[in-house]
Amino acid sequence: MGTDKFIPDIASALGEAGVGDGMTISFHHHLRDGDRVVNMVLGALAALGVKDLRVALSAVFPVHEPLVGHMQSGLVRALDTNYVSGPVARAISRGVPAQPVMFRSHGGRPRAIGEGSLKIDLACVAAPCVDSMGNINGSQGPAACGSLGYILPDAQHAAKVIAITDCVSKEPLRSISIPHNRVDYVVKVDTIGDPAGIVSGSISLTRDPVAHAIARNAQAVIRASGLLRDGFNYQTGAGGASLAASQYLREDMRRMGLRGGFLLGGITGYMVDMLQEGLFDAIFDVQCFDLSSVRSIAENAAHHEISADSYANPGQKSCCVDFLDAVLLGASEVDINFNVNVHTDSSGILIGGSGGHNDAAAGAKMTIIVAPLVRARLPVVVERCTTITTPGKTVDVLVTERGIAVNPGRTELIARLKEARLPLCSIEELRAMALNITGTPQKLVLGEKLVGIVEYRDGTVIDSIYAASDS
Amino acid sequence: MGTDKFIPDIASALGEAGVGDGMTISFHHHLRDGDRVVNMVLGALAALGVKDLRVALSAVFPVHEPLVGHMQSGLVRALDTNYVSGPVARAISRGVPAQPVMFRSHGGRPRAIGEGSLKIDLACVAAPCVDSMGNINGSQGPAACGSLGYILPDAQHAAKVIAITDCVSKEPLRSISIPHNRVDYVVKVDTIGDPAGIVSGSISLTRDPVAHAIARNAQAVIRASGLLRDGFNYQTGAGGASLAASQYLREDMRRMGLRGGFLLGGITGYMVDMLQEGLFDAIFDVQCFDLSSVRSIAENAAHHEISADSYANPGQKSCCVDFLDAVLLGASEVDINFNVNVHTDSSGILIGGSGGHNDAAAGAKMTIIVAPLVRARLPVVVERCTTITTPGKTVDVLVTERGIAVNPGRTELIARLKEARLPLCSIEELRAMALNITGTPQKLVLGEKLVGIVEYRDGTVIDSIYAASDS
Repeated sequence: MGTDKFIPDIASALGEAGVGDGMTISFHHHLRDGDRVVNMVLGALAALGVKDLRVALSAVFPVHEPLVGHMQSGLVRALDTNYVSGPVARAISRGVPAQPVMFRSHGGRPRAIGEGSLKIDLACVAAPCVDSMGNINGSQGPAACGSLGYILPDAQHAAKVIAITDCVSKEPLRSISIPHNRVDYVVKVDTIGDPAGIVSGSISLTRDPVAHAIARNAQAVIRASGLLRDGFNYQTGAGGASLAASQYLREDMRRMGLRGGFLLGGITGYMVDMLQEGLFDAIFDVQCFDLSSVRSIAENAAHHEISADSYANPGQKSCCVDFLDAVLLGASEVDINFNVNVHTDSSGILIGGSGGHNDAAAGAKMTIIVAPLVRARLPVVVERCTTITTPGKTVDVLVTERGIAVNPGRTELIARLKEARLPLCSIEELRAMALNITGTPQKLVLGEKLVGIVEYRDGTVIDSIYAASDS
Repeated sequence: MGTDKFIPDIASALGEAGVGDGMTISFHHHLRDGDRVVNMVLGALAALGVKDLRVALSAVFPVHEPLVGHMQSGLVRALDTNYVSGPVARAISRGVPAQPVMFRSHGGRPRAIGEGSLKIDLACVAAPCVDSMGNINGSQGPAACGSLGYILPDAQHAAKVIAITDCVSKEPLRSISIPHNRVDYVVKVDTIGDPAGIVSGSISLTRDPVAHAIARNAQAVIRASGLLRDGFNYQTGAGGASLAASQYLREDMRRMGLRGGFLLGGITGYMVDMLQEGLFDAIFDVQCFDLSSVRSIAENAAHHEISADSYANPGQKSCCVDFLDAVLLGASEVDINFNVNVHTDSSGILIGGSGGHNDAAAGAKMTIIVAPLVRARLPVVVERCTTITTPGKTVDVLVTERGIAVNPGRTELIARLKEARLPLCSIEELRAMALNITGTPQKLVLGEKLVGIVEYRDGTVIDSIYAASDS
């Protein structure tokens, strides 16, 4: 009757779940660089001698370095992810995986799961707290990480679901992220994660003057756009310029006496402060970035855990990104057609992935890319992006420290920004300014091996990634 | 992108949803006898001229009388439900529907939805409160009913979902039962329900001495069973004897200094009081029966809304009923093999349906049927039930005011009850006692028309219901 789900160790649980060659095993990244579950499970799978697995891990961090060895050994044949960093990213760029990595977005992943094109045999939940029925939350326990949004679609659709936890509650949990009826097995281990790597203690505002110049320009665009009014819905990242822009937004909202609707996405204490101050009605949280947001989601009823389906899945009836008024997003490169690259750097090496980038850009009324004109002595504005993560048609504005370029089709927005006397220029002018500083960079030569496929959120393939040359 | 879901009227929303002949339209019964949504939507469908619909309504109340006319007109060809009462029940017993009614259980319905055997084209949510994104809860608004548990599987799986509401919040809802990403359209109407018919102001304990005698015996069984200890999980209904039994349970738990796990099912203020008193850790609520429980689910984090999937769906990884230590359930008839009938009375007329009856009986460690020996001058213990709702193999004990019969296979339980000197007898002896009072009743003669199919929670057919003769 499924009432005793507790299994003594991971190997036994994998056996109960019937793992075998060629299966798809899914994981999530809420424990970020503190995660111990992916390595633990893959280690157990290696010991069981299975092979040719597809690993569907929502984002890959430096801590997941052992995955490189598992790719080389044949345990892992394929990787399906929304973001890569660290040694695994470098290994992919060197061509280590047996087949090209499938890069999705945070909304495209649950779309693929829901429609059945990413069929999960076994979902592994890094579960900060589990009760005796198998209910799970992310808010309690030594590895508390807050929202478990990215794994909720997996728990809904996977054939088997294992919760791996280091905190078991005898009493029913007060808050339930994944209900018992979606959980087959529970394994208690010593630790699922290193708190120091899971969340930042606190994220502090940058003092970098370039970031502040970009942030002031970005907020000037928001102010002039006509979108900043009661009910304003907003998303931004935790990068320097994005976070600094939130400070200027906050000052504007206070001065104008506005009350926004919701804050969305990966959540920081800075957003929590704005919620508590009454500047916004709600936070919709698919991932917590710091301790303050972990505390807030546990305590504040206006701070909601949402699933990746609710956040950004274009296959749902609606998703939160569709309701955004404005989003601030970063870029590794922006090309003169406003396409954005957050997958690779200008030498073609993998440094990230969409995450929610192309989702939020598609949904928001106004998508602002914030980036310095020049990074590592290379222009950020390029002729054509090395990799296209986010199509230019979904991007409205590029904001740099030296000028603001609006996508030419946005005539109403251009008129508003002109009226506000913002330093507008064409994107070609921004590119020229950058080239003036850097000189013409060497043409990038890539290897011949296909190492990644970039799937847009709707399931179409928008780009391919080739091995970087080691030059 | 699905951000403006508000449609001016129900007919337009039905048009947008593409309703057509032969479709399956689903509804839920949380507004009980105060519901106005089913009649409103069926009226609009009739005006559109569609026909041959299957109506999947989780329970039918007297207020749904217009359904009889819609069955006669050909608008509604088939009905799929877990419980019937009032004029519709009588019409089914007279053979009005074009095809036999499919009777399911509260767990069997979401099983059928999840496996695809009950495929819903359009789910209609009677939504007490909706925000501008389309998020829904049951706790706010003039027709607040608390839990929306029975419609959650429909919202998850239906091709189209319409929310019909009389309360729209500009701000994001604090508690969200159905997230926006499962909602296609929202229609605002004047009123979705009559509060007087939705919940009881308060449910008070019976003074009926027979009910109290049964309740004392039932609690004596629980006390003697060995199941009453810390972590005890319990379900009972809102009937006279069941509710009275809760009073005796409460006294025992106070005296013994116990703390139970969860209370389950349809929830009353009496259970809320036990939660608040600290006698239980949690309530898992699939439906609120009174104002006190509606208030509690909105305010108390230990009072959880659960879906019908979580409550009782045998197709899930586990369901709450599986964790029950004891459940108290009523009966129209119990036969000498411990089969229970809650579908029909002894004249074969429909008076109910399983609801969660056969689910809880299958899940609980101990299932106690509470019933008077004689009802309406007929014995409750019969040779063979007119209709089998719940198989005898899932029933442990029959408790009456005159004696307690234990299913013969339960030797350990029999030993414990004997040791506690409870008034045990065989079920045949209970039948003899009843016959001694009533005399031998006339043999029931039923009509020839098949009017109902009783599907057990696992999808097997366990009985058929024939039209009642009008004698």
